[in-house]
Amino acid sequence: MFTLFESASTGHWQADSIAVLRGPGIASCEALTIRQAPDMPPRGSPWPLVGVASHARYVERDERAALAAVQSPLGRPEATRAVLIPIQKSPEWWALAQDERRAIFEPRSRHISGSLPFLPAIARQLYHSRDLGEPFDFLTWFEFAPRDESLFDQLLASLRGTDEWTYVTREVELRFTRVNTKEHLS
Amino acid sequence: MFTLFESASTGHWQADSIAVLRGPGIASCEALTIRQAPDMPPRGSPWPLVGVASHARYVERDERAALAAVQSPLGRPEATRAVLIPIQKSPEWWALAQDERRAIFEPRSRHISGSLPFLPAIARQLYHSRDLGEPFDFLTWFEFAPRDESLFDQLLASLRGTDEWTYVTREVELRFTRVNTKEHLS
Repeated sequence: MFTLFESASTGHWQADSIAVLRGPGIASCEALTIRQAPDMPPRGSPWPLVGVASHARYVERDERAALAAVQSPLGRPEATRAVLIPIQKSPEWWALAQDERRAIFEPRSRHISGSLPFLPAIARQLYHSRDLGEPFDFLTWFEFAPRDESLFDQLLASLRGTDEWTYVTREVELRFTRVNTKEHLS
Repeated sequence: MFTLFESASTGHWQADSIAVLRGPGIASCEALTIRQAPDMPPRGSPWPLVGVASHARYVERDERAALAAVQSPLGRPEATRAVLIPIQKSPEWWALAQDERRAIFEPRSRHISGSLPFLPAIARQLYHSRDLGEPFDFLTWFEFAPRDESLFDQLLASLRGTDEWTYVTREVELRFTRVNTKEHLS
């Protein structure tokens, strides 16, 4: 099942800001709707972005237990803010062997252990896009309550300061506020 | 870029046999052509099978060097025999953490080190299909000279006897002979 991030003039999430952090930007987005689809949409337009919620590539058994103990699900009623961060990593990253990528990901960058304190407040889901021939390698979707926005900014700053992030060649940050309709809960 | 395994009445590779080893079979195939495409084909028919030649998920740095030292490329003129092995692994496999899958893959099953002696003769390419919503998780394509067919059978028997293979829930084996046209070299 593919997850489609669709952009239109109206949608479940109203766009508040789009920031281009590295590399080329992204076609404008007024509002976003996230939808599941059994097929890849036809190509040729910048939206939708498409990803797959696949199995974790680096998380080890003990880390998975630690994550499961603290992380929150998507769709909490109070989580009315969301951020979509599409990133692309360099050819150098993808040319590394599994143990080299893992060493950068956790022992050096503490991607998992450094994120743990934030996860009760900041819900998050990773979507893999690279094997789909998408413009980005990963799409990460975050949801949190408005009071936790500064906590989210801290999490982002911490990730962006890691060794892992030196391999990020393209990064865009789109912030949203949930539109108050019953529809978004369906 | 997607790799499409297309079945038709004629093609670059003539089907010699189809064996169903585990799980449901596969729609008949008389001849096969392998093609690159920038888009996923529309769904709804059993062929083509589609995969992506993605980065390696388990191979470590030293293993990669050992593989590079012995493995042969696809397309050798003498390699007129080919085998396509689509497999699917169980939900239990996909629910394992990375370190658990790696422990089964190499330390317990010697998937890499056990294959090394065969690789000068047996060229091989793995394609990932699971994230594409395909019926199989992996497609592996092997090419070898007719004189190396028994060596190939040994490699297969060795893989199928591993702990890793206890997680394989569906497996089909399609054997081919190359059709002698200039076309296949294009």
